[in-house]
Amino acid sequence: MLSGATLRDAASAARSVADVAPLETAGPDDLTFLDNRKYVDAFAQSRAGAAFVSERLADRAPPGMALLIARDPYKAYARAAQAFYPAPPLASGRAPTAIIDSTATVPDDCEIGHYVVIEAGARLGHRCQVGAQTVIGPQVELGDDCRIAANVTLSHCVIGARVVLHSGVRIGQAGFGFAPDAAGPVKIPQLGRVIIGDDVDIGANSTVDRGSGHDTVIGPSTMIDNLVQIGHNVVLGRGCILAGQVGISGSTKLGDFVMAGGQAGLAGHLNIGSGARIAAKAGLMRDVAAGETVCGSPAVPIGLFMKQVAVLQRLAKKRDGS
Amino acid sequence: MLSGATLRDAASAARSVADVAPLETAGPDDLTFLDNRKYVDAFAQSRAGAAFVSERLADRAPPGMALLIARDPYKAYARAAQAFYPAPPLASGRAPTAIIDSTATVPDDCEIGHYVVIEAGARLGHRCQVGAQTVIGPQVELGDDCRIAANVTLSHCVIGARVVLHSGVRIGQAGFGFAPDAAGPVKIPQLGRVIIGDDVDIGANSTVDRGSGHDTVIGPSTMIDNLVQIGHNVVLGRGCILAGQVGISGSTKLGDFVMAGGQAGLAGHLNIGSGARIAAKAGLMRDVAAGETVCGSPAVPIGLFMKQVAVLQRLAKKRDGS
Amino acid sequence: MLSGATLRDAASAARSVADVAPLETAGPDDLTFLDNRKYVDAFAQSRAGAAFVSERLADRAPPGMALLIARDPYKAYARAAQAFYPAPPLASGRAPTAIIDSTATVPDDCEIGHYVVIEAGARLGHRCQVGAQTVIGPQVELGDDCRIAANVTLSHCVIGARVVLHSGVRIGQAGFGFAPDAAGPVKIPQLGRVIIGDDVDIGANSTVDRGSGHDTVIGPSTMIDNLVQIGHNVVLGRGCILAGQVGISGSTKLGDFVMAGGQAGLAGHLNIGSGARIAAKAGLMRDVAAGETVCGSPAVPIGLFMKQVAVLQRLAKKRDGS
Repeated sequence: MLSGATLRDAASAARSVADVAPLETAGPDDLTFLDNRKYVDAFAQSRAGAAFVSERLADRAPPGMALLIARDPYKAYARAAQAFYPAPPLASGRAPTAIIDSTATVPDDCEIGHYVVIEAGARLGHRCQVGAQTVIGPQVELGDDCRIAANVTLSHCVIGARVVLHSGVRIGQAGFGFAPDAAGPVKIPQLGRVIIGDDVDIGANSTVDRGSGHDTVIGPSTMIDNLVQIGHNVVLGRGCILAGQVGISGSTKLGDFVMAGGQAGLAGHLNIGSGARIAAKAGLMRDVAAGETVCGSPAVPIGLFMKQVAVLQRLAKKRDGS
Repeated sequence: MLSGATLRDAASAARSVADVAPLETAGPDDLTFLDNRKYVDAFAQSRAGAAFVSERLADRAPPGMALLIARDPYKAYARAAQAFYPAPPLASGRAPTAIIDSTATVPDDCEIGHYVVIEAGARLGHRCQVGAQTVIGPQVELGDDCRIAANVTLSHCVIGARVVLHSGVRIGQAGFGFAPDAAGPVKIPQLGRVIIGDDVDIGANSTVDRGSGHDTVIGPSTMIDNLVQIGHNVVLGRGCILAGQVGISGSTKLGDFVMAGGQAGLAGHLNIGSGARIAAKAGLMRDVAAGETVCGSPAVPIGLFMKQVAVLQRLAKKRDGS
Repeated sequence: MLSGATLRDAASAARSVADVAPLETAGPDDLTFLDNRKYVDAFAQSRAGAAFVSERLADRAPPGMALLIARDPYKAYARAAQAFYPAPPLASGRAPTAIIDSTATVPDDCEIGHYVVIEAGARLGHRCQVGAQTVIGPQVELGDDCRIAANVTLSHCVIGARVVLHSGVRIGQAGFGFAPDAAGPVKIPQLGRVIIGDDVDIGANSTVDRGSGHDTVIGPSTMIDNLVQIGHNVVLGRGCILAGQVGISGSTKLGDFVMAGGQAGLAGHLNIGSGARIAAKAGLMRDVAAGETVCGSPAVPIGLFMKQVAVLQRLAKKRDGS
């Protein structure tokens, strides 16, 4: 089965579903999922015809619901929902208002929106979609099957295949590089590029600066949420996950599968090991070892952070009593 | 009287003012206000002809100033300033460079700027203003009297009347939804919409993601400042106020009249009661009861926060002395 | 010498370099620099032909490298790199798709990109560059030699000479001004402008609101990074440096040469003295004296902050041991 789930009750095998839907609004023809304990009550009252659920929570299902037992119900649902809702097909062609430099390479199977500007020497892969008003600068390269939304600005970058850039993303502008001087800052020419791997996703209004001398690098399958700032020379490994409004200062390097929660901030020139987890709102000023979880500002290992929170709370309450 | 204020001195009744202005620059023909104790000195030296002021601070006025006693001088000033400076009238019509799909509905009394793109099935209300370069996606609906600035991107949304969207706002893009997997994240198709109530105001470069299955909802009269991130499935009630750079993670629900200070961050799947106040920079990881005020990261009730700050400061100073 | 550095070894005087490059990738014909102790090992192994380096670290150089001893190697490198990479020359002219109001002033030596919109009464200085899709509102003024990137929106502003605005910058929109009211917020008409001094640099997707009654002011040579929010009536002095995602609330005033680290947040109506330093992630709720350094949230002087961090850590560890 596509989703890797097991049907609990053979009698339900003939059941078919017509759509996917959330717990609260799903009806008898819909497939849903339960992933978060917070929603067990909604699950118990759901009218959904079928649901992905873990073994552990399956007995909370209402009578008559077909249960698809999955180790990871959310992932199973994701795969099923992808089958129900494949990405919409391209409407290949170029809007007559798109301005494409004669030296740019844009295959005929791309979909180029209104008022798009594609400058000299840019090269797009097959089946790329480019939304209205987007500007693709000189020499920019895009792999196959990229989806670039509207009002995006790209320059000084090489982008892999199947990359998704949401509206308002800015890639490749000069970063924040200057040497302070009494007569005013002396700007450092920014000479590097941004290299983005395959299957990367970057959220709306996020910004990625070009490298200063090195390149800024975003590894394959990395997911970046909205309003995230990536400074010059930053290197992100494979499969990193950066939630909304994260900021990473110049020249910091992340290994693979690093996660950073919303509004986390990383100082410059740090090394973050693979699999490290940086809590939401953390303010990181030191290197982090592979696999470590850090919280707080200044960020410390999670065990120490929990004790700090507990001791502070205890002291505050004692003071209250005294 | 328009502003609900009372003139203190009948002798000033014949005074007329020609404009509104700040304390420091107002002259004898200007109307100003005093709202913040910080500016009492500037008030005492102001050359303004008239001022809205509270009863309490009225005796700090310079001689000769006509005093308009108001319970809320800022609100009284707001109403007066609105009368002096009504919103500029529309210049109805469509720029010849605007591209409007033949199946879109755009009343003749709308003002559509240069290079605007309005896609299939979109429906605008009367007297909407759409700034240059803005992209309105398929099936998007706008109520009457909306003011959409330049360089805005709208998709998958239904927007009420009198909504103001500042430049660079992104509404309706797919949110941050995927299930982690060793082979790379499995993306969840995002199927919901964004529903925005009447009289909502959203600041420059803010982002509101479409729901994943449910809709993302912004209640009427809610005010959102610049660079704010609203995740998928978030529900904001009526009259909420979100200051700059606030981030709200997916599926969190706010009641009515909730306030969040600048750079506050809310984790996902929380419930925030009506009238709750979330301090600037707070990092919220738990539900908040109606009317409660929380501060800090991790956020705690304000009373406890104040004690935490005090006890920490006391210990740090003691250490200093020892 | 252009960079103010001294050649250590007269035998190297005849050496010439062809390019500038980072430590790790520089070859025998390249000039590089060492500025950060973290990179001493990379320096020792660098194949660069020449390097700017401080007296103190010069003996770590590999044999054969020509050493240019500089008090500030980064600044010396900056000057050298500027000489190697001057800003690209303008391609003066107007894209045929640019829409320029007949009452706007745009000198012939400007470079105006595709689909730019310049509205009534706007005035550009000489040799300004305006990127594709940018919208310049009515009466906006730009000094000479400004570089405005693509997808920028300007209104209600007066901008000095040599100002650089990166893509997605929003200047001059109405700020967050309203008086709360049970029937919904009463908006304050925003009547001021944004005044930007010479040599200012503003990063991608940053936002600067127009003043409410006063003007919002950004002093000359101030550097602002990406995704920064500047509220209405804020005044920044000369040479301030604001790192990524900083937020400054309405009516706060900064003196000259104030520095704020990434994600710092400043409450409204504060006064920050010249030369003050606000740490990354600081949450500032009080005035700061000239030259003072503050950290934490709520922000305190750095000495007190360090003690707070130390005492909390000690108590948390003691608890652990007990």
